[in-house]
Amino acid sequence: VDLHLTFNRKGDLAAGVYRALRDAVEDGRLGVGDRLPSTRELARDLGIARNTVAAAYDALVAEGYAEGRTGSGTYALGVAPAVVVRPSGASRLARPTLSVPAPQAPTELDLRLGLPDPSLFPSAAWRHVLADAVDEAVRTAPGYGDPAGDPGLRASIARHVSVSRGVRVTPDEVIVTGGAQGAFDLLARTLVAPGDRVAVEDPGYPPAREAFAAAGAVIVGVPVDGDGLITGALPAEARVVVVTPAHQMPMGVTMSGARRAALLAWADRAGATIVEDDYDSEFRHAARPLEPLQRLDRTGRVVYVGSFSKTLLPMLRIGFLVAPDALVAQLADARRLAGWHAETTTQLALSRLIDDGTFGRHLRRSRRLYRGRHDRLVAAVSRELAPWLRLNPAAAGLHIAALAVPGIDAAHVRHVVALARASGVAVESLDAYAAGEDVRPGIAMGFGAIPDERIDEAVRRLRDAFAEAAS
Amino acid sequence: VDLHLTFNRKGDLAAGVYRALRDAVEDGRLGVGDRLPSTRELARDLGIARNTVAAAYDALVAEGYAEGRTGSGTYALGVAPAVVVRPSGASRLARPTLSVPAPQAPTELDLRLGLPDPSLFPSAAWRHVLADAVDEAVRTAPGYGDPAGDPGLRASIARHVSVSRGVRVTPDEVIVTGGAQGAFDLLARTLVAPGDRVAVEDPGYPPAREAFAAAGAVIVGVPVDGDGLITGALPAEARVVVVTPAHQMPMGVTMSGARRAALLAWADRAGATIVEDDYDSEFRHAARPLEPLQRLDRTGRVVYVGSFSKTLLPMLRIGFLVAPDALVAQLADARRLAGWHAETTTQLALSRLIDDGTFGRHLRRSRRLYRGRHDRLVAAVSRELAPWLRLNPAAAGLHIAALAVPGIDAAHVRHVVALARASGVAVESLDAYAAGEDVRPGIAMGFGAIPDERIDEAVRRLRDAFAEAAS
Repeated sequence: VDLHLTFNRKGDLAAGVYRALRDAVEDGRLGVGDRLPSTRELARDLGIARNTVAAAYDALVAEGYAEGRTGSGTYALGVAPAVVVRPSGASRLARPTLSVPAPQAPTELDLRLGLPDPSLFPSAAWRHVLADAVDEAVRTAPGYGDPAGDPGLRASIARHVSVSRGVRVTPDEVIVTGGAQGAFDLLARTLVAPGDRVAVEDPGYPPAREAFAAAGAVIVGVPVDGDGLITGALPAEARVVVVTPAHQMPMGVTMSGARRAALLAWADRAGATIVEDDYDSEFRHAARPLEPLQRLDRTGRVVYVGSFSKTLLPMLRIGFLVAPDALVAQLADARRLAGWHAETTTQLALSRLIDDGTFGRHLRRSRRLYRGRHDRLVAAVSRELAPWLRLNPAAAGLHIAALAVPGIDAAHVRHVVALARASGVAVESLDAYAAGEDVRPGIAMGFGAIPDERIDEAVRRLRDAFAEAAS
Repeated sequence: VDLHLTFNRKGDLAAGVYRALRDAVEDGRLGVGDRLPSTRELARDLGIARNTVAAAYDALVAEGYAEGRTGSGTYALGVAPAVVVRPSGASRLARPTLSVPAPQAPTELDLRLGLPDPSLFPSAAWRHVLADAVDEAVRTAPGYGDPAGDPGLRASIARHVSVSRGVRVTPDEVIVTGGAQGAFDLLARTLVAPGDRVAVEDPGYPPAREAFAAAGAVIVGVPVDGDGLITGALPAEARVVVVTPAHQMPMGVTMSGARRAALLAWADRAGATIVEDDYDSEFRHAARPLEPLQRLDRTGRVVYVGSFSKTLLPMLRIGFLVAPDALVAQLADARRLAGWHAETTTQLALSRLIDDGTFGRHLRRSRRLYRGRHDRLVAAVSRELAPWLRLNPAAAGLHIAALAVPGIDAAHVRHVVALARASGVAVESLDAYAAGEDVRPGIAMGFGAIPDERIDEAVRRLRDAFAEAAS
């Protein structure tokens, strides 16, 4: 790259070099994947100290304009244009494609996203706590309860996410919601006025952005790469950004530490709220635990959203959010207007299940089992599908995603998905998650609901579908 | 009343006389309570047939401009000015007064509205169906279910409201909601665009109008009299009107047949949707069953809203709506975005409780018991509080209301309520339900949660509070 940089040689040199390089990325002189000069070369060319250049490069990486590759140098990430989707009056009520398994569409080998293994659900323990909770509820809370949720369950959730996920939280900051979707809905109703911009990951989880669009938000899709949301591509102004840092939905990648820092800095500048959707991070496959953004937040910008849909079952419709103090009363009011609160017996029973240790044991057992399925699926995909797919790493969660190799487009992927489904294997085409027109061809595969011993067979049939589509 | 009427003597004479009289009401020449000439007098004065005048009077009554009093003649109802409450940005998120018992405010003698008797709840049967439903749910519906609700429960509800309330309904027209409040929320999100007018009863149920205000509606309060909502005072245009025809909340009166016909006619003219909140009508104290508006609707204008909060307990957070076909898909979409659906095990258990006959037996038993409490409370209030209150009749439900006699204002009533509370009796001042500034002084008393044998004592203490406030 032949790079001409103009910057003010008075004042903070590193900041000047940083801004000059950032401008080069933003105006396209540095494209995605362009290798930056080494710090030694650039320092020599500009006649400044090498550690000044290194500091500027660090800032570029932290802000998401570049990435360091070990042993190889620093590469520009470029800034993909943000995709702006303006909701029309009609689309407010349009029926978008469901992105989770419809209950009426069973397949022999189900690799769709969103459903954990029902056979792991601790049914006997649940029946037991539920029966006890009926009497407790009738005796102590038969009427309209706290819209923020049962106080006991809020305390149980606070302890759970504090221990399991490192979230900094008191029970008063927890609001029990109708699954994660109920949390998105409350946040949309509370934070968004019609016309406000809401930034979302592209590709990303459609029901979350639909909840914000229904509140009148202008949805801005921000591209995602191997380090998560590309913070350099965030719009200058937005009221909210919705992210899945632990396990990107659907790409499966983990947001890098540098991007996390850049996202928090952006939110502070933009006056935006970060909605951290931590939907399936309890299932970790990598050794290093992933700290939530919420823990890094020092200025009350992050609302943490969690759910029992993956750790237990979606049918329970229990999720929660952890919000800064200033928001809690408003969110509880919105909850009241939307139907007061979740069913009380279910709340009391879940609190018991957490407090008596059953939930923790269930989580540890499920984690081991899902890690085994993850490893088996990754091995099978690497072995069988290498000619067509490049697998993304997933440090957590119940699904993986793979981008198609160059030359395979989204239409071809949809064809493969249809062939696979005809042979009894359900997987998802990534384009179902696209927020804008820029579709990334690829496939997402869930391993929550498929028995271990059927994984190899499912991937072999998917291989046959690729082979048939290619011929 | 000296009345000069101008009308076209060609064409439909009765319609001409009707329009002339209606104009006289609308421009104030006929005020509230003015006695109209007898049909004989007016027929003679106008030189037309007496049955022509009688037909015009019938139409006036049907449209809510006049009322017939047995043996006394016909009286103008007048048109009270509609109260328009414009929501500000701030009020969207304001924390309004809760109008249902807060769980942390127990009193010795609780006559507040909204809570049925928890001791009637069929706990043993509920534990039983719930335990069975856990296994059924995990086996058949562990994931994300139909946003409109479990198909079995929709069928059970359709049968129940068809038999118990005469609602015309197929299971496909039922949507399970988070209590009646969840239904108001869905309707607000689906029917209302910011700035649309929504007419509500004044006084009326605050959480319902707040749900519509949160969707950006301009709330128009329409006054209520002994025949329910005064249809003649409805605005010419509104997107929605929310009414409680069976048992007005909080006044306790039943909407007359004439008003029901007038309301349906108005909705057709205005292109409006009628939301019929039938919240506690299963408990009838009068011999004649009250047919819902929904049954009279021939043009798909009525959405019927019901709830299990009064027939079972509010803690279950299960309500439902019955909507015309054209609305069902939109409402289900809104439900999905707001958190998908109610907890599945609870839905399956409730369906079993209805289908196995337990719910019907519980209803019949509760109806007998509440009728006894109603009669006892009415007798005690008539006996003890006649100097201060005029009791409204209530044909159904779990509460009664009484207007203060002339000379007692709302501030005085609030003082009495505070004195009563200090003596261990909780009742509600009617002004908590006012939509606008026009407050009707009076008291509402619920009998859902007070034991029979404490009713007389509660009313005696209320009498002492009135006496103390008067001295």
